[in-house]
Amino acid sequence: MRQTFDESTDPSFGPRHVPLIRKAMAEQGLDGFVTPHEDEHQNEYLPAANDRLAWATGFTGSAGAAVILKDKAAIFVDGRYTLQVRDQVDQGVFEIRDLVEGGVPAYLEAAAPKGSVIGYDPRLHSPDALEKLKAAAAKAGAQLKPVTPNPLDAAWGEARPPQPAAPISPHPLEYSGEESASKRHRLGEGLQARGADAAVVTAPASIAWLFNVRGGDVIRSPLPIGQAILNSDGSARLFLDPAKVTPELPAWLGNEVRLETPADLPQALSELKGKAVVVDPAVSSAWYFEALAEAGARVQRAEDPCLLPRACKNAVELAGAKRAHLRDGAALTRFLHWVATEGQSNPPDEIEAVSKLESFREATGALKDLSFDTIAGAASNGAIVHYRPTSRLNKRAQKGSLLLIDSGAQYLDGTTDVTRTVAIGEPTPEMRERFTLVLQGHLALARVKFPAGTTGSALDALARAPLWSRGLDYDHGTGHGVGSYLGVHEGPHRIAKQPNTVALRAGMIVSNEPGYYKEGGYGIRIENLQFVTEPQVPDGGERPMMGFETLTLAPLDRRLVAAEMLTAEERAQFDAYQARVLREIGPQTPADVAAWLQDACAPL
Amino acid sequence: MRQTFDESTDPSFGPRHVPLIRKAMAEQGLDGFVTPHEDEHQNEYLPAANDRLAWATGFTGSAGAAVILKDKAAIFVDGRYTLQVRDQVDQGVFEIRDLVEGGVPAYLEAAAPKGSVIGYDPRLHSPDALEKLKAAAAKAGAQLKPVTPNPLDAAWGEARPPQPAAPISPHPLEYSGEESASKRHRLGEGLQARGADAAVVTAPASIAWLFNVRGGDVIRSPLPIGQAILNSDGSARLFLDPAKVTPELPAWLGNEVRLETPADLPQALSELKGKAVVVDPAVSSAWYFEALAEAGARVQRAEDPCLLPRACKNAVELAGAKRAHLRDGAALTRFLHWVATEGQSNPPDEIEAVSKLESFREATGALKDLSFDTIAGAASNGAIVHYRPTSRLNKRAQKGSLLLIDSGAQYLDGTTDVTRTVAIGEPTPEMRERFTLVLQGHLALARVKFPAGTTGSALDALARAPLWSRGLDYDHGTGHGVGSYLGVHEGPHRIAKQPNTVALRAGMIVSNEPGYYKEGGYGIRIENLQFVTEPQVPDGGERPMMGFETLTLAPLDRRLVAAEMLTAEERAQFDAYQARVLREIGPQTPADVAAWLQDACAPL
Repeated sequence: MRQTFDESTDPSFGPRHVPLIRKAMAEQGLDGFVTPHEDEHQNEYLPAANDRLAWATGFTGSAGAAVILKDKAAIFVDGRYTLQVRDQVDQGVFEIRDLVEGGVPAYLEAAAPKGSVIGYDPRLHSPDALEKLKAAAAKAGAQLKPVTPNPLDAAWGEARPPQPAAPISPHPLEYSGEESASKRHRLGEGLQARGADAAVVTAPASIAWLFNVRGGDVIRSPLPIGQAILNSDGSARLFLDPAKVTPELPAWLGNEVRLETPADLPQALSELKGKAVVVDPAVSSAWYFEALAEAGARVQRAEDPCLLPRACKNAVELAGAKRAHLRDGAALTRFLHWVATEGQSNPPDEIEAVSKLESFREATGALKDLSFDTIAGAASNGAIVHYRPTSRLNKRAQKGSLLLIDSGAQYLDGTTDVTRTVAIGEPTPEMRERFTLVLQGHLALARVKFPAGTTGSALDALARAPLWSRGLDYDHGTGHGVGSYLGVHEGPHRIAKQPNTVALRAGMIVSNEPGYYKEGGYGIRIENLQFVTEPQVPDGGERPMMGFETLTLAPLDRRLVAAEMLTAEERAQFDAYQARVLREIGPQTPADVAAWLQDACAPL
Repeated sequence: MRQTFDESTDPSFGPRHVPLIRKAMAEQGLDGFVTPHEDEHQNEYLPAANDRLAWATGFTGSAGAAVILKDKAAIFVDGRYTLQVRDQVDQGVFEIRDLVEGGVPAYLEAAAPKGSVIGYDPRLHSPDALEKLKAAAAKAGAQLKPVTPNPLDAAWGEARPPQPAAPISPHPLEYSGEESASKRHRLGEGLQARGADAAVVTAPASIAWLFNVRGGDVIRSPLPIGQAILNSDGSARLFLDPAKVTPELPAWLGNEVRLETPADLPQALSELKGKAVVVDPAVSSAWYFEALAEAGARVQRAEDPCLLPRACKNAVELAGAKRAHLRDGAALTRFLHWVATEGQSNPPDEIEAVSKLESFREATGALKDLSFDTIAGAASNGAIVHYRPTSRLNKRAQKGSLLLIDSGAQYLDGTTDVTRTVAIGEPTPEMRERFTLVLQGHLALARVKFPAGTTGSALDALARAPLWSRGLDYDHGTGHGVGSYLGVHEGPHRIAKQPNTVALRAGMIVSNEPGYYKEGGYGIRIENLQFVTEPQVPDGGERPMMGFETLTLAPLDRRLVAAEMLTAEERAQFDAYQARVLREIGPQTPADVAAWLQDACAPL
């Protein structure tokens, strides 16, 4: 089993670790220390060695921050984590505060004693966040001081896990579809066009994409931690821990890429004196900006130049995504068959469901990793959006309720992410009504056509309108970008309520995942991945329109559909999707599954 | 007749007026002069005296700019006006350029000779626009110099129409629903809360709203030109031309408002030394920022504090809007009856249609003005979005084609804006298909429910999706705010493709006007005004949702609806709207019109 069900922290972390941190603070002459959830690579999923917030507080959510002063401390989380933080963090040590409303700056302004010295690690904060912290400290009459190594790392000491050192290997052309040299020269020309001499690239996913390599430094995604300087002539300097460099790598990287070590990076940055250098404040920490400023480089704050090209998958990547989704859909369909047969007579608990699904994926022989820990939410656990089953929380599926399974896999040819909600026993009329509303939103977002220039935020309401019409909604985004054997959450595009100015472009993969959550009752989510198609003029039309082609193939539970609520168009769309699943997935599955699929995909 | 059909300019304006401007430039030692379309009050519709761009070039569109150098000149317009500018402007004098792509700054950078002095009038430019002009001039090695009076006004001389001086009169509580004192104290508290001592208010619509007055300085809207300083204690200084002050006005304004003249304004601004003063760079020109900076005031760049409260109509304003729309809908219905009877046997020309419609509005006895010049577009003229009929362009409606009528009125109790598209003779299947697609978008935007925080840009796609699905679209926004006996286009909310961060709030009036335009063929637009309703939890739902209530009441042409394209829900919604028109408008019309309306509003 790849997935585990233990909890890596408990509420004793705060009482045990905060005194150690305070001791280290005192040794460094600090009156306080600020730490965010993000690590020095702004990763979403952190290597254990960099999960500082979890070690200090016990909180394992994917966003947050903590401030530790001499005599008090606070943890900051957003609305998604208000329940989880109470479960994981000792409130005798940490006051719980809202990350968004006021957040760390407001707390510092009110709580930092006049004349106090508050430490921060410049490698962990974005330059914009740091500006706000500095302004808040100034208002409090306190001083913000950069500290490396920081007192948390010092306190963690030998108990801290080692930095990851997974080997970094070539990602062949049959999967990437474009030589690194081609990417580097293409981006180099873009740098020239904006009058820049170089770009500093620090996002692990961008390192992976630009050099056509994959690593294993971060759980659930094949990310190589490293840094690069891309020059406008297409050459590059790549900084990797030598322990991770496989013998084949230097030849793979070629003559234009100089392979160096992280220790060489400061010197390399200082050599950018007088040069115009692109750095992205959204993915590179304040440390890079300070280092470049000290070096006398002319910093251009701009988006990571890899971000948009990485998001727009080429034909080879899309072909890979289709293969990966066929393979993954067959595994998931075997699981859904199991739930629909054995699972109905003997409903599984969440851990049994997760294990069974993993075994089908493992049996493909192509599984490199899960793309995230599978969420199996039985009954009321399904209503907790950021739920992850653990031995302590594990719940058995109940007759007359729903089981929500959100899962994905990493294959060499693509990354998957899919959610299915299935009825255990007979669903209630309310469950069918709500499932159908979610389905109507999902179908609307799958069939929409739109002109060039349309953003994901312009399409979000299509997925919500059916729920809105009945006074319902869901508190998460509708769609996120997905990498090609890379991160399962990637930008810059997004389908969400929040205004977004990034237009959808052909080749972008995005999830389509509306949901409905009845607190204490059940959860519903329907998630397929789909990619943006090339603009073309529809028959009889005048203007080119883009649209989506669905990648994910696995049956939707027709017992949850209230067919009478659907328009003729929606019904035909649903039936056509199910028929496609039967046609494409059926032949990939054993005979008993294929026979079941025939019924499961029958028209409404 | 209020509307006229002559053209106020012709292409000889450039050849005749540019030499005069160049002479005045030379007398002021200038090598060039930049003028935008906007006037010193950032009005949309300009008093004739301030329509500088039209006088200099002949171009009468609602946005643009011109640069006049010693030996060449350019006019800048956006994509809406590419045809019109060629019709109105002599290209021997003015090179035509894109206002958006590069615009004036790029032209200045390339065309202004090194060492040259380019004049600008600081009252006409926003501070942000001015910064860009200055940067461009600096790159060209030229100097940008403020000039008052500017060489264009000097050249215009005695031929320039006088500044408007329409009397400013009280707008009674029965229409405004809130005393000016209440508004001023409410806004004053808001200023205190943000640590501001005062706000400079310059938008004529804000002056009108804040002091409950109406004027007549700008065509088609009852705007009073003036300026005010609102203090955080709720008191104010109001600067109005004494010629416009009616005897009753001082008592109406009360003790807390000091009535002064525009000549007193510079001194009043200089008295704000050391104060924190809110000014809105979107509506107040650079002149105010420079004057306040010179005075030593602490300028807070922020939205005009009247903008949002003005947009959210109170119960009295909404009741007035409903009365105005009943009255206006009855007049429009009489017109539609005329088109459907006499107009079918003897199709009118555009001017006849406009005149007839105006006569029905005039007959209400309550008409204060049109809210804009009626657009009547017969056949291919209907496809020109910013069309206005003139004697030269006037076209007769044709059998087998469409007539588009976009019109509105100003009444004391409300402002209307409505578009109907009617078939003359038998429409083609294509016309019915396209009308039905527009209708489906219109209905979707009329029935949508949405939670607090939703912006107009999040809803825009609902109105376009049916057209998009067939490769069609329209090149204008879907909805604009509308004032209460004020401007027919007002912010800050908007339903459009462009990202917008202003959430829709209860009481906001907004148009719902998708369209389709077949170049050289015909135009379709369906426009109703609707207002945002208070959030309430729908039956069986969980969360409060806002929605829209339709204000506009006039029948839609059922002969243009392809009923087989509609879902059952759309069909019921259409029938319910038509039934409401019959029920509410029928009793307001003469017997022959009411009888016709019975058939016109029959279910599909």
